[in-house]
Amino acid sequence: MTSNRNVLYAQAGGVTAVINASAAAVIEKCKRHPEVFGKIYAAKNGIEGVLEENLVELTHISECQLDQLKQLPSAAFDACRFDLDPLEKHPEQYERVLAVFRHYQIGYFFYNGGNGSMVTAQKVADYCTEHGHPVTCIGVAKTIDNDLALSHCSPGFGSAAKYLATSLLEATLDLYAMHRTSTKFFAMEAMGRNAGWLALAGGLIKTQMLDVPLIILPAERLFDEKKFINKVQHFFDTKGYCVCIVSEGLKNTEGQYLNVEHIEHTEFKDYPQLGGVAHIIAQKVRQHFDVKTHSAVPDYLQRSASHLVSANDWAMAYGAGKAAVTAALDGFHGVLPVIEKVSDVPFVWRFKNVKLLDVADLEKHVPDHFLSKDGMEITQAGLDYLLPLVKGERYPPFKNGIPDIHPLDFPLLPKQLPPYQIDRKRVSPI
Amino acid sequence: MTSNRNVLYAQAGGVTAVINASAAAVIEKCKRHPEVFGKIYAAKNGIEGVLEENLVELTHISECQLDQLKQLPSAAFDACRFDLDPLEKHPEQYERVLAVFRHYQIGYFFYNGGNGSMVTAQKVADYCTEHGHPVTCIGVAKTIDNDLALSHCSPGFGSAAKYLATSLLEATLDLYAMHRTSTKFFAMEAMGRNAGWLALAGGLIKTQMLDVPLIILPAERLFDEKKFINKVQHFFDTKGYCVCIVSEGLKNTEGQYLNVEHIEHTEFKDYPQLGGVAHIIAQKVRQHFDVKTHSAVPDYLQRSASHLVSANDWAMAYGAGKAAVTAALDGFHGVLPVIEKVSDVPFVWRFKNVKLLDVADLEKHVPDHFLSKDGMEITQAGLDYLLPLVKGERYPPFKNGIPDIHPLDFPLLPKQLPPYQIDRKRVSPI
Repeated sequence: MTSNRNVLYAQAGGVTAVINASAAAVIEKCKRHPEVFGKIYAAKNGIEGVLEENLVELTHISECQLDQLKQLPSAAFDACRFDLDPLEKHPEQYERVLAVFRHYQIGYFFYNGGNGSMVTAQKVADYCTEHGHPVTCIGVAKTIDNDLALSHCSPGFGSAAKYLATSLLEATLDLYAMHRTSTKFFAMEAMGRNAGWLALAGGLIKTQMLDVPLIILPAERLFDEKKFINKVQHFFDTKGYCVCIVSEGLKNTEGQYLNVEHIEHTEFKDYPQLGGVAHIIAQKVRQHFDVKTHSAVPDYLQRSASHLVSANDWAMAYGAGKAAVTAALDGFHGVLPVIEKVSDVPFVWRFKNVKLLDVADLEKHVPDHFLSKDGMEITQAGLDYLLPLVKGERYPPFKNGIPDIHPLDFPLLPKQLPPYQIDRKRVSPI
Repeated sequence: MTSNRNVLYAQAGGVTAVINASAAAVIEKCKRHPEVFGKIYAAKNGIEGVLEENLVELTHISECQLDQLKQLPSAAFDACRFDLDPLEKHPEQYERVLAVFRHYQIGYFFYNGGNGSMVTAQKVADYCTEHGHPVTCIGVAKTIDNDLALSHCSPGFGSAAKYLATSLLEATLDLYAMHRTSTKFFAMEAMGRNAGWLALAGGLIKTQMLDVPLIILPAERLFDEKKFINKVQHFFDTKGYCVCIVSEGLKNTEGQYLNVEHIEHTEFKDYPQLGGVAHIIAQKVRQHFDVKTHSAVPDYLQRSASHLVSANDWAMAYGAGKAAVTAALDGFHGVLPVIEKVSDVPFVWRFKNVKLLDVADLEKHVPDHFLSKDGMEITQAGLDYLLPLVKGERYPPFKNGIPDIHPLDFPLLPKQLPPYQIDRKRVSPI
């Protein structure tokens, strides 16, 4: 009788405040099924760690470390921007993964990443299976962008949304106190290259300030400067001030980004690095109205805010890890457990498995009915959608006045295979 | 027998997360001494509200509203950038204040603002007294900048410091996870035009990550680009990444601001609006090392973060309000209760009264021994100073997933005096 097949878990793409809760759930649940799962490994830096054999073993992780994982933002096993090339282009990458999987007797591959990288993970698992080493691949959902198709929402989004809404509310109170004598316009930038979900989350401040003069500029809508200026004028006239939340990926009516910070060139593609659009928006208002403006760019702060984790979002991230292992136990392969809403009041949700290939190239955008006719305000339907996702607080422990969080030290296993070097020039820099 | 003299409270200058705790304390304590204090008023927008007779009455404020005040960030009675001109230049401003004070029988003036405006408040009180209407003026300390001289620290600073340290720690974990495959440098901007205290607060992340490759660029030290680049190089070589916190008011070796966003011209002075220096620092690193960088500008978020209030800072802000009323009860005039440290372990502090004129033009800077020899790291002495100030959490209540905070509605009293118009052109736009 052969021993049980081992488990490999890896993280890829941009981090979230709750992705490590998913990691903890995968590890916990696999440990509870020793009749199925053998050793538990994690790769450092996603698929890169597999290729380069940078692995850690978690089979005997302590309860204490699991608890630390559950409250640690960012990616405990390090993120990765690298993805395998198509099989026909670089078959040696697939051979290498097969060699590593065979050596470590990996039979289950849980990949916590973006759609694209999870599909690659499935392809590599299929490749292994076809070459006589069966591997089950299950995706674990995560993204702050909330653009995961077929899912009610994405684990990671709720916490980033809670951070942005809280921050915008607090800054709005600041502006409110200053506007009669000083700053009259404030713009805050939200992440979101193609999807405006995080900008939409700023709309939540309406639940505390019903009539707040707030303009939302989501990535999905082209920026019509004239309409925007008119709306600012309207709010100046009626309220005396105006706040704005804008997607980093806002484009003008010609379809060009308002602010490309820098363009990174790679073998296959140019990646524009975005940033500072809030600043540009504020500048336009200052120049047009001759008023004092301010702008904020929270950048990484919004996706790593352990101190503003949404309890519901955390439960979804933790649940996503459990659901992935359940899917493996149920004999699935090439699936991603996504969130299905069961009822609105009370807010009830569960996981259902969808095929990774079915969600691969889909992007979920903010639907029209979540935005007002002019595309610059949130509707009640939008609020109703967002409210349950940001609900509940889950504070990390504090030490010395700041969150008691720090990188966890998982020592790398000694390498046993011949070295393998990744060509880093073609890694997406985003 | 004449009735008791009435109280006027006002707020001026930039807001903090805890200034309203001072307001609540002043009101509470005055209410408890009806044998001394008559009605309690607050002016909207500081001294502007006095001139324009924009007053609210707080004598019968409810316990519920006081509780709301205690957790509300920003300035509940609206901030003010206006200051009275010298008496010899615009005596009519002083006459107007006297007229308002006389009409409302104001005998106590509690001014919660910056040094400069508190001195003006004293001058105006003296003017009233000299003209037969005795007014006691007491300052209430507040500033996130921590540059208040003669005080161990400033109420408002600890919470902003806690916010910045927490944010930088979380972003550093993000960078840590990404740096092997993506972003290698992250810079965050802290407020502080002339004082680097808030940038120094970033150093607190060393209590969680002892060997963190952190560069601090406080406003007090001129930016030596070569030394900075060498230090980044050192951290890249030894750690593979580097984080940086920089004062908005950083100047180059020629003494010029690295980034003047915009210059506002007024009758008396040009006010450069600063912002975006973190971005410039990140750009320099990207250009020099050809690595991916990110930067964050929290702007108003750092001074309004009700969700990251330091319990010790809150106690100081609340205590500052109480101490001001105590000073009035004790017969003082023209004083400011400042914080005096009594012992380090346990951290014990109390208030002592200093003369407003003695602190007026002093600015407290980060002392040399809080910084390493190269001026870019924090020392143990610096950490020892900061730690008690950020200690303790004091979360606001949450509603709908975000803090349950919103502007409080204090209706303006109907005006009873002839109207008075302020010349807004000469108001400092900072």
